[in-house]
Amino acid sequence: MILVSPQLGENVGTAARAMLNFGLTDLRLVRPRDGWPNAYAVKASSGAMEQLGRVRLFDRTEDAIADLERVYATTARHRDIIKPTVTPQTAMAQARGLEQEGARVGILFGGERSGLNNDDVTLAHAILTVPVNPAFASINLAQAVLLMGYEYFRQTTNAEPHVAAVLEKDLAPAGELVGFFEQLEAELDTHNFLYPPEKRPAMVRNIRNLFQRAELTLQEVRTLRGIVTALVRPPRERVPYKQRASRGGKSGVAPGDAESDT
Amino acid sequence: MILVSPQLGENVGTAARAMLNFGLTDLRLVRPRDGWPNAYAVKASSGAMEQLGRVRLFDRTEDAIADLERVYATTARHRDIIKPTVTPQTAMAQARGLEQEGARVGILFGGERSGLNNDDVTLAHAILTVPVNPAFASINLAQAVLLMGYEYFRQTTNAEPHVAAVLEKDLAPAGELVGFFEQLEAELDTHNFLYPPEKRPAMVRNIRNLFQRAELTLQEVRTLRGIVTALVRPPRERVPYKQRASRGGKSGVAPGDAESDT
Repeated sequence: MILVSPQLGENVGTAARAMLNFGLTDLRLVRPRDGWPNAYAVKASSGAMEQLGRVRLFDRTEDAIADLERVYATTARHRDIIKPTVTPQTAMAQARGLEQEGARVGILFGGERSGLNNDDVTLAHAILTVPVNPAFASINLAQAVLLMGYEYFRQTTNAEPHVAAVLEKDLAPAGELVGFFEQLEAELDTHNFLYPPEKRPAMVRNIRNLFQRAELTLQEVRTLRGIVTALVRPPRERVPYKQRASRGGKSGVAPGDAESDT
Repeated sequence: MILVSPQLGENVGTAARAMLNFGLTDLRLVRPRDGWPNAYAVKASSGAMEQLGRVRLFDRTEDAIADLERVYATTARHRDIIKPTVTPQTAMAQARGLEQEGARVGILFGGERSGLNNDDVTLAHAILTVPVNPAFASINLAQAVLLMGYEYFRQTTNAEPHVAAVLEKDLAPAGELVGFFEQLEAELDTHNFLYPPEKRPAMVRNIRNLFQRAELTLQEVRTLRGIVTALVRPPRERVPYKQRASRGGKSGVAPGDAESDT
């Protein structure tokens, strides 16, 4: 469970308590507004904080999810982001299946006031929305965490084997994907594609979302990195092999370069 | 939902809020300790109390459940009472079936401190227990109500509400996608990425599959074409705009190029 920019310490505490109710112990915080450690959190957790073990603190959502193969973003409002939207039931069935394959799964929760921003949602593979009464839809942070924990525990303890669609794949950890995004965006900046500046954030989000949706494997992310590296090199006709090799790009030099250029 | 001897008004309010989140409106109170109506309850309900309509007040649990055909008693502790014990999932499936037959179903919740007494549990047809981490089992009143509401709503709405995010999309015609593939592969040949030749067909398939999986929109295919065109251009510092434009790539020149280079 990853809480992004939570505000009140006591809400972090009640979220921790809700996690532990269902046996979940990996809590990560991104930029908690009221600092960390937080005495209000400890108090509100009714002892959960002590049992939870180490809470990890991050400056960036990207770093908080770096080791996770699947990430869900909880959001209530409709977003203009093209990404699969699933219920807690579906998400936790997928999570359980993925974990049986050895993958790690995380859920992003936004802060109390405004939830996750679009950049954080973009980092996720899917949007997770609790089906609620549309006329009275607001649930608080601890309640959202509680419902995810409940679904997870319910499905785990009910022992109905579930097979998700994507299981055989060796999904890329989010950190690898972010590495690819940052490489691509740096090259696109150099090549003046992400222009004008005021449109850059939306363009970046659109591009990230498009790749997120593909549920890439680690190998595919490496292929994409190799593609970007290859495309920004001058074509082979112009640069002799030895000269090119000495420039030392760390990846993406195709093994055939020697034969074709010399 | 029948709250028996609830203590704090605000807990009644948050329970009401949790009910309304899942469209439940029939709240009954048996001997609320802090009286009724209760300003703390109204405040804590975030507007739910007004929308809920009339809350009925009773002196005895027997009277509160008099019109119900099926009653569940929520309890966490083990009881020496011989009665079927069900999960929320099972209970709400039963409730749904019963309601379709015209029956009315209620759930008893005990007060914050000690829960339902054995007499109240005895009045119920079955015991309802939330499966939780036995090492950290306590959940509060509003959370218990929330979980029942969630289960009820989940099963009633048969919800997989909107995979629609993906369906509403303006999917790219296959021809557009192939156009992108051919552009990309031509550039990758030029940059010697698809090498050696005997591996080329498999590499091309893998790359095409990766993009196919994303279910790209027409706009996204155009963005990808633009990205490839941008990446293979020399970086902006080296080539003045007029010279670059005269080379005449047929697509994918980002709209901002003119402003930025001239």
